[in-house]
Amino acid sequence: MSLLAVGTVAFDDIETPYGRAERVIGGAATYITLAASYFTDDLKIVSVIGDDFPQTELDYMQSRGIDLSGLQVKNGGKSFFWAGRYHKNMNDRDTLDTQLNVLTTFDPVLPESYKNTEYLMLGNLTPAVQMRVLEQLPVRPKLVALDTMNFWMNVALEELLEVLKKIDILTINDEEARQLSGEHSLVKAARKIFEMGPKYLVIKKGEHGALLFSGDDVFFAPALPLAEVVDPTGAGDTFAGGFIGYLASTGDLSFDNMKRAVIYGSAMASFCVEKFSIERLKGLSKEDINKRVAQFARLVNFDYEIEL
Amino acid sequence: MSLLAVGTVAFDDIETPYGRAERVIGGAATYITLAASYFTDDLKIVSVIGDDFPQTELDYMQSRGIDLSGLQVKNGGKSFFWAGRYHKNMNDRDTLDTQLNVLTTFDPVLPESYKNTEYLMLGNLTPAVQMRVLEQLPVRPKLVALDTMNFWMNVALEELLEVLKKIDILTINDEEARQLSGEHSLVKAARKIFEMGPKYLVIKKGEHGALLFSGDDVFFAPALPLAEVVDPTGAGDTFAGGFIGYLASTGDLSFDNMKRAVIYGSAMASFCVEKFSIERLKGLSKEDINKRVAQFARLVNFDYEIEL
Repeated sequence: MSLLAVGTVAFDDIETPYGRAERVIGGAATYITLAASYFTDDLKIVSVIGDDFPQTELDYMQSRGIDLSGLQVKNGGKSFFWAGRYHKNMNDRDTLDTQLNVLTTFDPVLPESYKNTEYLMLGNLTPAVQMRVLEQLPVRPKLVALDTMNFWMNVALEELLEVLKKIDILTINDEEARQLSGEHSLVKAARKIFEMGPKYLVIKKGEHGALLFSGDDVFFAPALPLAEVVDPTGAGDTFAGGFIGYLASTGDLSFDNMKRAVIYGSAMASFCVEKFSIERLKGLSKEDINKRVAQFARLVNFDYEIEL
Repeated sequence: MSLLAVGTVAFDDIETPYGRAERVIGGAATYITLAASYFTDDLKIVSVIGDDFPQTELDYMQSRGIDLSGLQVKNGGKSFFWAGRYHKNMNDRDTLDTQLNVLTTFDPVLPESYKNTEYLMLGNLTPAVQMRVLEQLPVRPKLVALDTMNFWMNVALEELLEVLKKIDILTINDEEARQLSGEHSLVKAARKIFEMGPKYLVIKKGEHGALLFSGDDVFFAPALPLAEVVDPTGAGDTFAGGFIGYLASTGDLSFDNMKRAVIYGSAMASFCVEKFSIERLKGLSKEDINKRVAQFARLVNFDYEIEL
């Protein structure tokens, strides 16, 4: 089924305990669509870049089946830029620089061919921009997922709460879930957030895995224990892309299938962190991905026989 | 099979965001044996208390099948006392007071009837005391597990490294695994720790669950997401007691059975934190425990069909 991803397409400078990468490809929509491209080939992107963005990277995205007709290119403009440095624990990072550039005046415009999209992933952006995308869809998609962050809770809470009313799945991290709900317990946080609109909540905990809440159901997937995490940038977006890409490819929103989607998302994220930028997300095979999923099964599945 | 637990039997003052509990029952060996008592009835304890410890609590331990003939009672002495305050996140705590009391001169003496024990759990204590217990066993137990903490790595590293050579399973938390190995990645930490002696490593991550490493095998169990965590005191020891109690009851050290042991340990820990002190560990039924294990299965198990 068709999947539309909205978010940044950008440059990053990244410093981790394993090294540095300068002016490499980044951005939420980049990670989301690349991860999703391993599951579905009806894939569209809405974003904005300057004319400084390399054509070879755009060509690569198209070669992965990503429709770029909703990607605005601003002549004379510069692409969004982020620079950050990770701490030794890799879960904490300092932002060293943020240059919004073409993002400052970004007004998403959906091409006609995008308007019947069935799955929508609203990557982390101003809630007002996320809302502008929703408003342009004449038919509500089958599933709308939204990613956001504490920054928008601080500076645009009202707009965020408005857009939350219109979505199905919210993906945020544990501290953001606590901030948004005012509850420390993630179980209680989920209940409060369900009252705000979403029917599903995915809580991303970085190296501590991810939780999926739906009604009274909970599913947990750990992060794969890896010998080397080279660069965590984009892992959350890659998770989201694998998750919604798998859902879009199967068209099955049962809780059992959403569990599998969480595992596929976690598998894609486990690749993402093994190299800088999007490098490890290029040229994966179905077999690579399936082997990772099998690793997850060995990591968490257990057999038991008990009488209840 | 027979299981011997060594560790403190103590009083605790506890303050959490949910309230206070003064002079309640605590101690590693208390939690370990109570948790294990739901799996095996050939259960012995080595510890020391003062004559201030309530007889009713000792009677209760005996009613759970725990052999107290290795529990020294020092007339005129005071039992070990710990006071702590938990932060809002419940994973961090401040120690407000520690009174070693009878622990200062503790010299563990194993009764003859203890000497053929098949499973041994050395709870967190001075490495020298842990070694003294091992030295008194004429036949090496089938399985020796040891719990320790950063404090002993700081003040008694040499003695700790000596005792590590003689054990099978080490249980520590993630920061301690990093400190002991000098590796940030837990996968690399496990490899280094295996070179120190243990064949298995259990890394306890509190609210983020537990990892079991054995050779190249890894298993992960999350903590059960709970609406209310009232008091985390003793959760790690309760986990250890459920884990080794299950192993002792089944006598099966295959990796598949150790996975189940991790789940049973996690289930026992999930009860422990629901009330202050040992209150929730009293009067559980087999059905209560089995229901919890089924909850873990729903939380982590997933079905998948892929071609490799």
